[in-house]
Amino acid sequence: MNYLELFEKIKQKGSFLCVGLDSDMCKIPAHFQTARHPLFSFNKEIIDATHDLAIAYKLNTAFYESAGQEGWNNLCMTIHYIKDKYPGIFIIADAKRGDIGNTSKMYADAFFSEMDADALTIAPYMGEDSVAPFLDYENKWVVLLALTSNKGSSDFQMVVNKENDKPLYQIVIEQSKKWADHNKMMYVVGATKAEMLKDIRKIIPEHFLLIPGVGAQGGSLKKVAEYGLNSHCGLIVNSSRGIIYADSTNKFADKAREKARVLQKEMNIILH
Amino acid sequence: MNYLELFEKIKQKGSFLCVGLDSDMCKIPAHFQTARHPLFSFNKEIIDATHDLAIAYKLNTAFYESAGQEGWNNLCMTIHYIKDKYPGIFIIADAKRGDIGNTSKMYADAFFSEMDADALTIAPYMGEDSVAPFLDYENKWVVLLALTSNKGSSDFQMVVNKENDKPLYQIVIEQSKKWADHNKMMYVVGATKAEMLKDIRKIIPEHFLLIPGVGAQGGSLKKVAEYGLNSHCGLIVNSSRGIIYADSTNKFADKAREKARVLQKEMNIILH
Repeated sequence: MNYLELFEKIKQKGSFLCVGLDSDMCKIPAHFQTARHPLFSFNKEIIDATHDLAIAYKLNTAFYESAGQEGWNNLCMTIHYIKDKYPGIFIIADAKRGDIGNTSKMYADAFFSEMDADALTIAPYMGEDSVAPFLDYENKWVVLLALTSNKGSSDFQMVVNKENDKPLYQIVIEQSKKWADHNKMMYVVGATKAEMLKDIRKIIPEHFLLIPGVGAQGGSLKKVAEYGLNSHCGLIVNSSRGIIYADSTNKFADKAREKARVLQKEMNIILH
Repeated sequence: MNYLELFEKIKQKGSFLCVGLDSDMCKIPAHFQTARHPLFSFNKEIIDATHDLAIAYKLNTAFYESAGQEGWNNLCMTIHYIKDKYPGIFIIADAKRGDIGNTSKMYADAFFSEMDADALTIAPYMGEDSVAPFLDYENKWVVLLALTSNKGSSDFQMVVNKENDKPLYQIVIEQSKKWADHNKMMYVVGATKAEMLKDIRKIIPEHFLLIPGVGAQGGSLKKVAEYGLNSHCGLIVNSSRGIIYADSTNKFADKAREKARVLQKEMNIILH
């Protein structure tokens, strides 16, 4: 999916919501525990209940890897299910990968060719040659960590560069925007850091930003939109736990829909 | 395995060699392509041929993920094989993970509980709470990226902090050594940056360092030892491609042993 197609979807659905499928064996409703593919079966119901309200799903690979080989299988099954049943939905593998060139190439193959995700989150620490191999796939996206939503983000991302007085996360954005433009690259910016979106928008007015941290982590959608919106929306706002674990009974999918609907309505107003 | 047990193994084998199992479907000898578990079958022969010369194996997860669910299976099979047949060998999952706390916890479960690796490489960009969950496992290790061996390492790792004139990689080491001591934490320092080991040893005299980049990436074992050795060896030097792809015929395992033997001999001299 390219930049304009993504914007079209956003307008069409009146939504820039990404539902985070952080599907955890210990948290999904009890009756899935005995299902053949518990995580996939849970995801399937969440997806069926929210696909018209969300423009993207984000699969956090940790939750699948922790269930071993079968977890990995559930991850792939979920992506294929979305691709088959709801084409045109943007799929983000939230894997935070990044390694030396020949290794990054293998990760790119794993997620873009083998798994057919549309986008992959990448950690920038190892620099350009660790990111470049992910940029070679047509209509596939790199979502680079810039400013994350967690407390520890201040440990290194806010280190101020002696040369230009800029914090590391800005250096990451300024450097990496030379590697690829807004048609290939997005950035992760935590919703808990909404005010900083103003400075970030000065550096990258056109790029899409993936914003986690709305909901369980305490970020505000209104603030994110105030500082982050651009002429092509430019935002993909993720909510995971607030939607998928809104209820733990067998009404979980209805409840997830309700929660997604609240966010989508708010987004629709923002978009107009 | 704890700090002193690791040092014991190093003395016993006269080696601080880690063999990197970057096992790639496209590079392993042709006759494995038709094996039931190609990557595992290849690894098994490499391990059988080198287990007495190496104190550690490093499995680069990218190479297994790119082979899908079956690749993941081969990764787990390899770890179980080493644990069963050659107990006392240190197993590093080179996964370069790191995410918000609840997600890092899932990765820790995946690699330490589910897979039973001894150590996991972690990217520091997201700070303390992204690393902390990996430190809760007894006798399991975090190997934090500090200064990597690739060209792009200079993009961000060398950014100089305005406050104290130190490059980011040193800030990473100084901060993170407060999170856990040399009994729980190691650092990745590329062999291509051997001279910098001198400064690093001033900050962390006791820690083990995982040194990739000897061989295919051009690093020198002699220089690494000159600047990096401490009273408990303190080095785990990895070679991947230089050993496992030394030959592509069905003599590959003998040739791998030869290459490993050359490094082990050199290490044995260094240790004495």
